[in-house]
Parts: sequence; structure tokens; C-alpha cells
Amino acid sequence: MIDDLSTNPFDDDKLHEECGVFGIFGHPESAAMTALGLHALQHRGQEAAGIVSWDGTDFYTHKAMGLVDATFSKEKVIERLKGHAAIGHNRYSTTGEASLRNVQPIYADLALGGFAVAHNGNLTNAAAIREELVNKGSLFQSSSDTEVIVHLMAVSLKENAIDKLAAAANEIIGAYSLVAVTSDMLIGLRDPYGIRPLCLGKLGGSYILTSETCALDIIGAEFVRDIEPGEMVVIDKKGMRTVWPFKTKHKRFCIFEYVYFARPDSFMEGRSVYEMRKNIGAVLAREAPVPNADVVVPVPDSGTPSAIGFSQASGVPFELGIIRNHYVGRTFIEPTQQIRNLGVKLKHNANKRYLKDKVVVLVDDSIVRGTTSRKIVDMVRAAGAKEVHMRISSPPTAHSCFYGIDTPETAELMAHTHSVEEIRKHIGVDSLSYISIDGLYQAVGESKRNNDTPQYCDACFTGDYPVELVDKIAGCGSDKKKATMGAKMLVSIDD
Amino acid sequence: MIDDLSTNPFDDDKLHEECGVFGIFGHPESAAMTALGLHALQHRGQEAAGIVSWDGTDFYTHKAMGLVDATFSKEKVIERLKGHAAIGHNRYSTTGEASLRNVQPIYADLALGGFAVAHNGNLTNAAAIREELVNKGSLFQSSSDTEVIVHLMAVSLKENAIDKLAAAANEIIGAYSLVAVTSDMLIGLRDPYGIRPLCLGKLGGSYILTSETCALDIIGAEFVRDIEPGEMVVIDKKGMRTVWPFKTKHKRFCIFEYVYFARPDSFMEGRSVYEMRKNIGAVLAREAPVPNADVVVPVPDSGTPSAIGFSQASGVPFELGIIRNHYVGRTFIEPTQQIRNLGVKLKHNANKRYLKDKVVVLVDDSIVRGTTSRKIVDMVRAAGAKEVHMRISSPPTAHSCFYGIDTPETAELMAHTHSVEEIRKHIGVDSLSYISIDGLYQAVGESKRNNDTPQYCDACFTGDYPVELVDKIAGCGSDKKKATMGAKMLVSIDD
Amino acid sequence: MIDDLSTNPFDDDKLHEECGVFGIFGHPESAAMTALGLHALQHRGQEAAGIVSWDGTDFYTHKAMGLVDATFSKEKVIERLKGHAAIGHNRYSTTGEASLRNVQPIYADLALGGFAVAHNGNLTNAAAIREELVNKGSLFQSSSDTEVIVHLMAVSLKENAIDKLAAAANEIIGAYSLVAVTSDMLIGLRDPYGIRPLCLGKLGGSYILTSETCALDIIGAEFVRDIEPGEMVVIDKKGMRTVWPFKTKHKRFCIFEYVYFARPDSFMEGRSVYEMRKNIGAVLAREAPVPNADVVVPVPDSGTPSAIGFSQASGVPFELGIIRNHYVGRTFIEPTQQIRNLGVKLKHNANKRYLKDKVVVLVDDSIVRGTTSRKIVDMVRAAGAKEVHMRISSPPTAHSCFYGIDTPETAELMAHTHSVEEIRKHIGVDSLSYISIDGLYQAVGESKRNNDTPQYCDACFTGDYPVELVDKIAGCGSDKKKATMGAKMLVSIDD
Amino acid sequence: MIDDLSTNPFDDDKLHEECGVFGIFGHPESAAMTALGLHALQHRGQEAAGIVSWDGTDFYTHKAMGLVDATFSKEKVIERLKGHAAIGHNRYSTTGEASLRNVQPIYADLALGGFAVAHNGNLTNAAAIREELVNKGSLFQSSSDTEVIVHLMAVSLKENAIDKLAAAANEIIGAYSLVAVTSDMLIGLRDPYGIRPLCLGKLGGSYILTSETCALDIIGAEFVRDIEPGEMVVIDKKGMRTVWPFKTKHKRFCIFEYVYFARPDSFMEGRSVYEMRKNIGAVLAREAPVPNADVVVPVPDSGTPSAIGFSQASGVPFELGIIRNHYVGRTFIEPTQQIRNLGVKLKHNANKRYLKDKVVVLVDDSIVRGTTSRKIVDMVRAAGAKEVHMRISSPPTAHSCFYGIDTPETAELMAHTHSVEEIRKHIGVDSLSYISIDGLYQAVGESKRNNDTPQYCDACFTGDYPVELVDKIAGCGSDKKKATMGAKMLVSIDD
Repeated sequence: MIDDLSTNPFDDDKLHEECGVFGIFGHPESAAMTALGLHALQHRGQEAAGIVSWDGTDFYTHKAMGLVDATFSKEKVIERLKGHAAIGHNRYSTTGEASLRNVQPIYADLALGGFAVAHNGNLTNAAAIREELVNKGSLFQSSSDTEVIVHLMAVSLKENAIDKLAAAANEIIGAYSLVAVTSDMLIGLRDPYGIRPLCLGKLGGSYILTSETCALDIIGAEFVRDIEPGEMVVIDKKGMRTVWPFKTKHKRFCIFEYVYFARPDSFMEGRSVYEMRKNIGAVLAREAPVPNADVVVPVPDSGTPSAIGFSQASGVPFELGIIRNHYVGRTFIEPTQQIRNLGVKLKHNANKRYLKDKVVVLVDDSIVRGTTSRKIVDMVRAAGAKEVHMRISSPPTAHSCFYGIDTPETAELMAHTHSVEEIRKHIGVDSLSYISIDGLYQAVGESKRNNDTPQYCDACFTGDYPVELVDKIAGCGSDKKKATMGAKMLVSIDD
Repeated sequence: MIDDLSTNPFDDDKLHEECGVFGIFGHPESAAMTALGLHALQHRGQEAAGIVSWDGTDFYTHKAMGLVDATFSKEKVIERLKGHAAIGHNRYSTTGEASLRNVQPIYADLALGGFAVAHNGNLTNAAAIREELVNKGSLFQSSSDTEVIVHLMAVSLKENAIDKLAAAANEIIGAYSLVAVTSDMLIGLRDPYGIRPLCLGKLGGSYILTSETCALDIIGAEFVRDIEPGEMVVIDKKGMRTVWPFKTKHKRFCIFEYVYFARPDSFMEGRSVYEMRKNIGAVLAREAPVPNADVVVPVPDSGTPSAIGFSQASGVPFELGIIRNHYVGRTFIEPTQQIRNLGVKLKHNANKRYLKDKVVVLVDDSIVRGTTSRKIVDMVRAAGAKEVHMRISSPPTAHSCFYGIDTPETAELMAHTHSVEEIRKHIGVDSLSYISIDGLYQAVGESKRNNDTPQYCDACFTGDYPVELVDKIAGCGSDKKKATMGAKMLVSIDD
Repeated sequence: MIDDLSTNPFDDDKLHEECGVFGIFGHPESAAMTALGLHALQHRGQEAAGIVSWDGTDFYTHKAMGLVDATFSKEKVIERLKGHAAIGHNRYSTTGEASLRNVQPIYADLALGGFAVAHNGNLTNAAAIREELVNKGSLFQSSSDTEVIVHLMAVSLKENAIDKLAAAANEIIGAYSLVAVTSDMLIGLRDPYGIRPLCLGKLGGSYILTSETCALDIIGAEFVRDIEPGEMVVIDKKGMRTVWPFKTKHKRFCIFEYVYFARPDSFMEGRSVYEMRKNIGAVLAREAPVPNADVVVPVPDSGTPSAIGFSQASGVPFELGIIRNHYVGRTFIEPTQQIRNLGVKLKHNANKRYLKDKVVVLVDDSIVRGTTSRKIVDMVRAAGAKEVHMRISSPPTAHSCFYGIDTPETAELMAHTHSVEEIRKHIGVDSLSYISIDGLYQAVGESKRNNDTPQYCDACFTGDYPVELVDKIAGCGSDKKKATMGAKMLVSIDD
Repeated sequence: MIDDLSTNPFDDDKLHEECGVFGIFGHPESAAMTALGLHALQHRGQEAAGIVSWDGTDFYTHKAMGLVDATFSKEKVIERLKGHAAIGHNRYSTTGEASLRNVQPIYADLALGGFAVAHNGNLTNAAAIREELVNKGSLFQSSSDTEVIVHLMAVSLKENAIDKLAAAANEIIGAYSLVAVTSDMLIGLRDPYGIRPLCLGKLGGSYILTSETCALDIIGAEFVRDIEPGEMVVIDKKGMRTVWPFKTKHKRFCIFEYVYFARPDSFMEGRSVYEMRKNIGAVLAREAPVPNADVVVPVPDSGTPSAIGFSQASGVPFELGIIRNHYVGRTFIEPTQQIRNLGVKLKHNANKRYLKDKVVVLVDDSIVRGTTSRKIVDMVRAAGAKEVHMRISSPPTAHSCFYGIDTPETAELMAHTHSVEEIRKHIGVDSLSYISIDGLYQAVGESKRNNDTPQYCDACFTGDYPVELVDKIAGCGSDKKKATMGAKMLVSIDD
């Protein structure tokens, strides 16, 4: 039975992308460029941010909890991050405690010199490798996946950073895109399935590697191409070259990047994210029309492009029937009970004028636990809507992601335990429709899902996991939550 | 000649509402309710916030620079603000230094007991009164207008707070809506022209006075009515009553509240703000059509409702051709030169897919200095737009406001010194049209502007100032900027 | 009956001087000089510090809770405090809440220009005057005595600052030394009895007014003379002159300054404070010898000079039998229960080598509540002392001070309610002797106390109060603790 | 030639002990006890402090820059540090950057479980070992010596913590006393020469290991005995036992602990530190009397016990001729030039009354660079002293320490490059005498220095270094200053 969970009003009941990465080589203001790139990638992780730069002699780093703006807008911070090469990282946190020592990039003094790395994604065998390394004498300082990679490099017998990283890459299993900087070069690496995004840009003579094209736009850089699945790109003074450390795999890009994670102005794998979302809305309008509808209303902000697509395809007027208060920050950290009870209203308000006595089509991107959806529907009904029809621009989210997306445990996913009709009743709408899996594939340009060799990773909808879940199967380590590998060390930092 | 001013990228080149007020009487959690109300009014002032509460024995106050969330989300802060009555204030700051001692509400120990007051607006004879009071022995502790009101009350020979406030109100000239709390009652007062908004709500047995209805919505209160121009409302244990301290004046509500200041989900003077904006878009589409347009694109976020109105009236598709990064805070306080040069991109990015090779209608609410508009047009052109046509949902802003809105000096207003054609060239569009003054009046429900007794205050467009500008004419005091009344006292606060 | 009060280990059970003042005129780095002076006067008040400077055009101020070092060691703070004249203040706080708005100096815009003032002492009729002023329309912003003075000046009909201050001085009653700065001059004023100290110094062409000569020493200034009781000193471009606003009174300097408050390296009223303390020790050795004593041990640090005097007069060796940990700051603000129970040991430790099996003479300056004394005696006994004899370098403290010294209510003073023998038993010593009142007068150079017209204020010992206790007698206002004049306003400041 | 160096007035020109350690096992409030112990040891390191506790399940840690009081006085901090075993550390910093990641204790997840360690001292072959370990794949996270120890344990093939630590101890060379906590036990280890101190105490059923006995006194624990040179003490539920990992060496305890580092109320190697200092003063009075002296004046606070000894031995009166301002904190971090020029006066003032026209014997513990001494002498002369004779309670400091004491490079030590007569002239005294090396040995209870097998480490006076200086000789690593082992990583932390 679904009960009224007293939930955090600021939990917007969405899946969360956990990281964004950015690297640049050959620019005199590499740290400022990286800060701007991370700013553009802020939607991929708001918990913490960090930059490492290299000036030919020394490495410099600055990391802090909080938004990029707050940390890297200060001139003195940027000035300390000297050099022509830099990498940066926005973190949301999936594995590892939420503390500063886990903030990426991670730096290490390897025998061959300094090495810093940041990645977006998740290793599915991190706990297993970690245990093995500790037994041989490696000392881990963080609980982050990334440290596994540098320890593998440290104990590798290979003689240069490229070979050491290739050796490490062949030990780890997971979905990841990483950028690294050494005293000679910038390196980018995408996992063999290309699940997480990574693209290449150019600004004058500098090369950039980053998660999304919007981070190229902000610094005026030109998009060159997406990095291929399993491709390692090495950029140094002589230019750029490719190394292929893996046997080729079939591409399985994360389809949810199109649905929700990526910024609408980004292009991924050659496609406009905004256009994909409008297409989804159009397919939804075709698959699940609402004949007598008066208005199409997005659940702001993520439902907006699909709602526009739905409106244009159906001819039903698009209206901002729910107004979002953009001043809701992450700072309401100790809400009073009074505030807690008012829930969703801190963030959204009904625009009564366009809801009262109307047949309303609400468009949202997904339903995770269902708690927020119900409150929004209540608010729309309280504003006087005659009927409320919910349309969801993804198939039911019925399976957890182990590839770098913050999802609840499978058992907490409403679609895992409830039928569409049960969910409809729970959130209190007159009708509820999700886009079909084939409809989604059509919206992104395929004729349908190829069930033998699917074109995308869609494990969260289908449960079809392309990358082996080693730690989960072994029952060791991080399953979904955090590994307590070794004794637990609880660090508190002075306020 | 207009030159390329190197401007602050975070100056979004808009006029700014300077304050929001909220008061409640008869609620056991009056401070929590006030914090929520101020949160809903955050768009009316982001510099600082303050609350004063009264529990029958003591007054309590808490004020801080920064957003409401950051200050009032902590349970312990709210817990300290005990009592059944409270008033609160969001500040943007027009007159007075930006320091904590100027943050409202202002509290005073009058001979009859404690008195706290907060107001939205500006007094046009504050400097003149202040000078007179200082000569008689009053000591001012702040440079805020509000302190003038309490000093007038302190030296008044009247015997109760209502009469003292009425006496003070008859001395001051200006545009203001104020809320006050004494040991017996909550008082609301709107200036004789009703230039600034103030409305009345009810939540169970409690009364609320606040600037906008969205602050009623957030706490689930019911809207009762707008306070009349010149009306003083007194709320105490016995209920609510009205006092009329002034001779009646003709109502002149600020028409710019409809254009830009108010939240779209608020109702003001009986009208939906969102609907007014859509109407403006529709009038614009009729007054200044773009026959071959491919897309209507709002300059986010304020241009969106008018753009939807324009799209629906013209049949040209509405698209989010410019994407706003909502993580741009007020924290980019020390941008590097590098970041400064990239200007507008920190906040906006072009959505190339819907701009390239298109004839674009850009809809924005106003052009103040023109700096941001030009950068946005440049960005849209760089994304490949074939033609760019700008439509503005207000008449040219050619005159400063002295009634509580933060506007540049008249000489800095682009429309004061340049023709529409000159502005068009400066911002680099193919065509530029503003809504006509009569068109604006039509959009808000009038047949046209009544030039003899205009229905609204539209001084920023017409230069027709309904309230006398005493200090400005005398050349004393605060003209536009701050008064240096008496010797200047420069206060620094320990970091 | 005296019971074991569970007391704060950091309450060192002493009376506290509450303020130090410093003013300088005619020095290009007046604020830096003032910061140094306040640093030297830090022992007179550790709660907060403030400086106001004047550069011929503007006044500048900086105030903060905490030590002078922490606030004024930053170059940028000092740089902002421009000008050739400045006054400063260290605060311990007797009346008024402990909040920033009560930190001195207090600044006011009088009709004739800016005026800033700081004082050491206490007004005994502040509440009575305040009530009268509020009834006439004055608005008070703080609960500080000092604000009474500036309001009296503001409503004075006199035409210049000197006459206004003289008029105010004739209204107030109390013990005070004040320094003030206007746009023309530096003013110093000492109350008619000269209870609190104030002296004049010179550094090149600059004049200095300050509480103690140690503040002259630190900046290398030369001591000129003490300011006379009731003397107002005016320093401007033309030099220094004296104004006598009062009818003359008999001098009654605070004798406790010699016993405890002043720094030992200061000279007061022509006498070395260190020498006076040594004399006290010598008188004690004569009045109350310990024939078989092995060691004389000071209770650090305040008992040290008297212990040296006792040792030299008696021939008993002086030893540091108790070692003080100088790292005990004011920061142990939330001690755990565990720490609380260990009490005095955070601050002191027994030096066993010189206590074990010894007959010990402990020398301390006073016993206020007796709590600390008992703990120290326990510690000395636990270290193996054979006998412990306590000698106190002041007569029993049996009466509260209303003249600017922080004392407990009279009823909490151990010597008010207990005989010497009872106190001896309570603190657990083999013998206890206080210096006699005549012995104290002898030590400071008199033949004995002149009981008809005593040479000093010794009210804390004798209950003979030279200045009328207006508010206390009226039962209004501040008695000992704080006045709640008008409704109480509780201010919290954002952390 | 010696010139007037413009020095930091807050550099008090002393050698500095760099660390204090404390460990406790079997106490329910182990963290609170440790915080108290560290408070008592604050004189051994003021830069940072840290505690690790163990509650049978998890390890907890809290570290911060700053004083123990500031960090560990908060109840919530102590409450988080659960468990019956804890170790703590005060840091001054000799090797390693002054950043939080270098603050001890250092924690590591060894394969056998968690392990935390803190040490007082310095390893002389840390750089050499570090290089070797990095080549084999160890990743270092700090630049601290201590991390070398845990990496050696991590790669050791031994099966338990005791054997692993013993193995590591046989690799490292240096002067150190360490405490460590594992999931089973508390371990203490003193280097084979016993250069740095470590003692054992007992409180009820709990054992304590700490640097000085004053840390036992503060918690009321009983002193049991000093740990022997080369002794490893293991404390667990069964009690205490000793392991001897080294071949025996001759004891060479640091004689400077008696002269200056230790607290006077501590006992070390069976002797009262205060008594040793008084003995030194007595020997000085015999070796270098001042026949016509009027007063013996200590340079506070470190010179005081020797000055008392000198006074008692010579019969010349002891007086506090220099008064120290105890409010000088570490916070004067950005002194203005004005303040800088006033130098020593921020901290000290002459007590003129006992210096004017006097023949003064100044007693200080050492002269390092000579800068402060000269300023103090100048101050004493400016106060009117007739003659000034300086007596130093240690032999000339002519050699750097590599065993955990912060000394300048040998070349900066005044006594390395100048004769006593040259120093006398430089500091401007009428006579200058240091205690002789044999005199010093006599004062601490020996008949004289045994030059064949000296009883103490006195390398700073004699250059006779008992422990091999591996890194210094190899020219690698940390010589005196910090090693830049591997590429330098410069970390900045968000303010």
C-alpha cells in the first residue's frame, strides 16, 4: 500500500546525474576556462566542485563543497590555479561519503610524477578491487571510486602514464567518462559501452574534453566530435591522438540523458537534447491524447520542452500553469515542521487563472517515488482544475541505475511495485500515461528498440544491464549505498 | 553615440522592485508564516530580510543580509521569534547604505511602548523632514526612510499608535505601503495614490497584510481584498477595522507591476498578472507583427508570458531558443576579467537547434541601458539566426522612478537619450518595436490612457509624476542616490 | 550556609574593570595608534572593541565583539579608518545587552555635525533620564548609558559641542571618564570625583587621552599628567585647553585600581601600580605574618606583585607554586560536564615540587564568591602542602560597585554574608587574613583612612558611596543588572 | 656583520617544541580526557590539534587548525568522538606543509583493520623511505613523516599490528615518541635513544601515555613511570605489557626540555622541570655573578624560574621589571607597518619603577637570532636602567636540531656565526654570560658532561648528533625545510 510519506519538500523526487567533467590543455587561463565549464555543467552535480591545474612545474588544486559560483568566482582562487592545463569536476555523490576528502579531482604522486583524475560514472567492481589492493599494502584515503583507479596505476609495472591508465582501465568495470592531467598531457577516456557522455572541443589552439556541449558554448569553443566508446584520447604539445585500450564493444549510450539529465541546449551523440524532448512530447500526444484538453501545463522546469512538443503536436495551448520560485536554494536545510508541511509550495505555485475550470494536461519527465507528483496534482486541483491528465515523457522507472545515476533502491521505485493504474490512483489524476519504450526510441530517431542488441542503455526502464554488476552480485561493497570497506572512519570537520 | 560599455554581466539590465512586506496577526506561528511569505516575495528584494515578532511581552527580531532561505530556514532562528504577531520585509535597497543597520523592519521604543514598521516604497520628502527633526534633537541611527516615520511618531503629541502614525502619515509624501506591529495590533497603510500594492488575506482566524497574493498562496491563506489607496487597516484581537487618515486621492497603481515586477501567479487590483502579460504579447503581435517569423523566443524568464501571448495571437511557434542557467547566483562577486568578457553566457545560452537559419521574434519586457539586449542579440545571431526582430512588452523607459523602484538616473536610460531607431541599431536587430502606451492600457483592461486623469502611475514611460518630488526639487537629500544628510558615517562590519 | 556551587571554571571569581578608553588628535595614523592603545588596555575589557576616526570630511567606524588583536590587526580594517583624530573603546559590559549595537564608541548625527563618544564608568541616573527623554520623543537605539549622553546633547539648546556636552554632564550622575571626537576636536571629561582614571599624553605634536599610562608606553608617547576630577579637556588644532563644567568636588579615586584592575606597569595618580601592590604585600606580612612559612606562592597572575612584596618583607622564599596555563582563552564556551568538573585545572596546576610537605602562604588579591579560592586550596593540599595560609591584598569585598565595575549583587558577595572565620572554613585554609582598610591606605601612601572625607572611593569595602545611586533608590532602571526600559527588544544576529 | 633585521614582532625568537601526544585506553570519556590532556600540552604545539577515538566498531576523528580550546571545547565535537580509547596530537609543524591534511593523528585502513598514529619528533630518513615506497606503488596523501610509518606497516608481511609497527620501527631512523590506537589496543613507542619524552599514567582502570606529566595532572591521573628508550608499550583489555623491538641504545634525553620546552610543573625522567631551571639560575649566579646588581628581572615568561634561582642564590631582589601582555594572540596576522615598527611592545612593557637608575640582571633562557633580545634591552635602557647584564640559562645555541624541534638553519643561529662578545655588542648589554655546558649538566644533577658517552642529547649546543642524519647527508628530502618529494601539490582550502 502506498502511504503518505512525510517527505522532504526539497527532494524533488527525480533521478540525479552525479557528475560533470571538464579538461583543457594549452590555454593560458586554463583554470578560469574550467571554472566556466563547470558552471555550465552545474546541473550535473551541485554538492561540490574541484579543479586541478598544472603549470609545468607544480600542480595546484582547490576544492570545496557547494556550487561552482560560490567556490570559483573569486579572483584570488583562480589566480592560485596557475598553468596551461587543468581538469575540473562537479560532484553530486553516489558512492563515498559526502565530505571534502571525496571531492574530485583526485591527485596522486605516482613514481613517474603527479597525476590527477576526475570521472563521471560508477565502477561496478570498485569494492572487489579495493579489497585486493588493501591486502597488498595500498592505503586508501577516501571512499571514492576514483581512488581505485590511481592505486591500480600506482602498482602497475607499466612505465608511462598512458600504459598505466590503460592497465587500470582493463581492471575496472563500469560506466565512466574520465579526464586526467599529468605533467605532459591531458587524457580522456570513455568506457567501452560509451554509457556516460564525453565530447571534444577546440578553442584556438586548445583542446577541451567535457561532458556536454553547453560547456563548450560558454567559453566560445567549437564542438569537434563525441569521444567514441572505449576511446582514450591523449592531448599534449604535439596535438591529439587516440589510443584504444579495450576490445570494441557495442555502443549503449544512456537514453535518460535525453529524457532528463542533460541541458536542453546541449547536443549529445549528434542530436539536440531539446529537440529529442519535443519529439517525446509529440510521440506522447500521439500515443496518449487528451481529446477535450484546454491547456498543456509543464511541471517546471524539466517538463517544459516535452510540454511544448505535446502542445504543438496536439494543438492544445501551452500555458505556464505552475510557476516555479527560482529562489529555492539548497539552503533550506533545517526547515521547521510548519514549513515541511507546506511542502511543494516553497518551490511551486499554481497559476489559478489558467487552471480553474480547465481540463489540464500535466507533462512531467518521470515519476520516481511519486511523492512530489501527488502534491503537484493536489495543488492543481485546489486551484480549480476540472480534470487533470498526467503524461510522462519516459517509460516507468522500475530499476535502479548502477552506472553513475543517483536512484533509490529498486524497492523504493514506485513503478517497480505498482501498476500504472495504481500509480494513477495514488497521485490522483484522471488519466496517466507514460511514453512506451518503442515510442521513446522513435523520438530519439530509431524505428524501435532492437531487443537483441539495444541501441541505448535503458536499464532503468527494462532491467537490461549492459555492464556486469560485480560488487552487487558478490554482495560486497557498494551495492547501491556506500561500501564500508575496512573499518569505518567518521571524519568531522570544524565548522 | 552609444559605445560598448564594459558592463557587469550580472547586471541584468532591468529595473528592480525594491521591497516586499508581510504582516500577520493572531497566528501561533507568526514568524514561520512570515518567513514563508517573504520567501514567496523574494523576487521583490534579495539583498536582506528581517522579521520582528511580538509575543505579548517582548519583541523579537532577526535580520540578515542575503536571501530569506539562508536566514530563516533554521529552526532555531524561527523558534526565537516567538509570538502571535509578526511583520517581515525583503529589501533591495534604494535609499540608504547597503548595511545591516538599514535592514527593515525598524524597531523603536516609543513612550507608549514598542513599535516596529516595514515599508515598500520611497518617501520623496524624507531628507527635508529629517533635517527638521535633527535640528530639534532627534538622533537618527540609519539612513533609511523608514526611520523618518518613527521619529515623526516619537515627537507626535498624539496619545496612541494609530493617531501617531496618522499624524506621521500626513507629514510624509511618497509612494509606500507599510505594515507595522505594536503591542496591541497589526497596522497596514497604503499611500493616498495606491502606487505600491498591499492586499489583505485570511488564514483561519488570522489576518495577513502583504504585497502580493502569491504570499497568501504559499501559506494557504485566502485572498480577501486589496487595501484601498490611502486606507489604514487596524487589526487587533477584536478584528479588523479601517481608518482614513488622508483626504481621498485618485488611484494611480504602478502599471510596471503588471509588466515586470510582480510574480506572474499573483493577482493585483483584481487582475491576473500572467494574463496581463499574455495580453501585452497579443497586443504587440497586433501592433508590430513579424509576417515571415519562424519562431517566437522569450528572453528568459521575464519575457516568457508575453512571448506565449505573442505566439498564440500570431500563430508563430513558441520555442525556448535561449536557455537560462538557473545556478547563476548573486555569488559571482569577484569575476575574473576572463569571466567578465564572456558576459551574458554565464546566464544564458543559445539553443542553436531552434535559432539557426530562422527568422526569430525575441520578446523582452523592457530595455533599460541596452547593454544586455545587445549581448543577447549577438548570441542569437552567432547561433545562426537569419533575422532577429525584438518586441518589447512596455513603452520606452525614458524617466527615472522616485517611488520605490531602482532605476538608473534618467540620463542613463537609453530611451531617454535615443530614438527607437538608434536603439535598434545599437542592439543590432532587424526591427524593434515597443508596445504603445495606449496598447499597454488596453492590455490591462482600459480602452486607452486617460491623459487628463491617468488610471495608473506610468511616470517611467511618460514623465508624468503623480506625487510631488520634494527632496529632488529642493536639491537636498536623496534625489536618486543616497542622501548625505549630516556628516557621513562609514561603518564597516567585521568579516 | 555556604554550599559547593557548581561554578563555571572560567569564571575566575574576580571583579572586572569594564572599560578602557583611548583618544588621539593630530596624528596621521590615528586609528593604528588607537588600536595599539586599546591593545595595551585589553585587560580593562575583553568583550568587544570599537574605533571611530575622523578625517576632516567623514567619520569612519569599526566595531566587533572579541579582542582588539582579532579585530584591529588587519591592515585593511585600519586603512579604512582614515584621519588624524580617533577614539577607541574596550568593553567588558556592565549595563546593556552584550550585543554589537551596544559596543562603543557611540556615534550620532547632531544638528551641528557628527559626534562620537566612549566612556569608562557607569551613570547612576541613566534610567531616570532615559525615561524622561523617551517621553519627549527621543528614540533610543541601544541600552547603553552612553546613548543617554548624546541624546541629552541632541536636545540641548546650546550651540556648540562643548556647551552641549557640559549641559549633558550637569544632568548625568555617575562615575565616568569619557573621550569624544567631533569634526573639530577631541574632548576628554572626568567625573567630579575622579573615580575612574584618565590621563594625558603627548607624542610629537599629537595629544592622547587614555585610561592608563601603559597605553602611552606602547606607542612611545610621553606621560603629561592625570586629568583632574571634573576637568573637561578640549584638544584642537590650536592645542589643549581646560573647561570646568562642574562645581568642584573632593577627589575620590577608585582604590581598587591599585589592588587589581590596573596593569602593574601603569602609573595612576602619580604612583606605580606595581609598587603599590608590593607595598600591600609588605603591609600584609606585617599585619598577618606566618612565622613558620616555607614558601610564599602567588595565585597567578594577579597575586604576584603582592606575593613578591610579602616575600621580601618576610624573608620567606617566593616560588611559583601554581603554574598558570596561558592558553586558556575565552573560547571554552561549551565545556563538557567532564571538563566542568575538573574546574580550575584548565587554568592552573600545582607545582608539586615546591608545595609537598611545605607550609604555604598563598597570596591573592580578593575573594569574591569564594568558589575559585576553595578549588585552588584543594589543589594545593592535594599536592601535599602541610599547611595553607591565605593572605588577601584587599579588605573583604562586602558591597557591590555601581561605578563601572562588574560585581555580583551584594547578596552574592561572600564577605557580605560571612565572617572571616566562616570564609576561612569554607575555603579550607589554616589561617586567612585580609589587609585592614587602614593598612591598605598606608600601602598607597596615606597614614590612614580619613573617615570624614575619605581620600579614595572604597565603597566596595566600606559601603560608603560617594555618588548618589539615583536609579537604584528609585527602583527604576538598572540597579545592578540591566534596565528593561520600555518594552524589551531581543535581537539575534545571524551566525 | 649583524644588522637590524626588520623582524616579525610576534616571532619571539625562540626554539619551538613541535608536538605533544596523548593516548588513553579504557575510559568511557576517552575523547574528553584526550582534549584535556592536549590542552595541558598546548605549549608543545599551537598550530593544529586532532583526536581519533575508537568505540569498538568505528573510528572517529576530528582535526582542526588552531588551539585545542577553540576546537575541542564544543560539546557536540566531543560527543561525536565516541569510545573507550583515543589518541590526540598537538602540532607545531616542522616538516610538511601547514595544512589540515598534515594534521595528526594519521588514520589508515590497513588490511587488518583501522590504525591511527600520532608522534612527537622527526624521522631523519623519511624522504629516503618515501621515495622507495612510491616506486613500489604506495600513494602518499600528505607530506608528513607519520605517513611513512603507516605505509611501512601496510606493506609489511607481518600479521598483526604490533609486529607490523615493530617492522616499521626498524626501518625508520629518528627521534620520536608515538602513540597509536587499533581496534584492540593502545600502543606507545619511544625511539631507541629516548630523545623525545613519553610517560605512563593511570586513572582508575585506564592507562594513559603522554608527553608530559602535566597532562596527567589535569585529569587527575597518577604518574606511573617514564617509558624507556626503545620501549614499545602495548595496552589492551588484559592490561599493559612491554615489547622491545630494538637492540638497546644508550639514553640521550633532550636536555633542552629542561631548559625551555617542557612546562615547569612537569616532571621529566624523574626530575622537576621547575627545580632544574632554578638550579640553572643558581649555577649562573655562581658562574657569572653581577656584584653590584640592584634587581634580577626575568624576560617573561620563560626566564622566570631561572631568575628566581639566580635571585635566591645571589641575594639580589627578584622583580617583574618587564610586564607581559597576555592578550597577544596568534591573531596579529596582518600587522600594519606602524605596528610592526613598535615591535616588542605589543607583548612586553618596561616596569619603569624598578628599572630606572638600577643595575639590572636580565635572565633569559636562550638567544636564537638575537633580534628580540636587542629590542628588550633597548626597552629596558629606555626605561632608565643604569646597567644591563644578560644571563642566559643555556649554552650558546650553535647548531640546528633535526630531532623534532623547530630551529632556524644553522647559518641563521647567532651563536653559530658570532662570538659571545660580538653578541654582547649586538644586543647592547654591559655584560653577557651563558651557562657553561658542564654547568648545565651540574644543574640537572650530573657532575659534568661525560664527553665519551654524553648523558643527554645536547646537539644544539655541541653539534654532537646521536642519531644519523640520513636525508640531510643524502641531500634528499627534508634537510631542515620541507621535502618536495615528487611533484609539488599546492592545496588551497575554501575560506
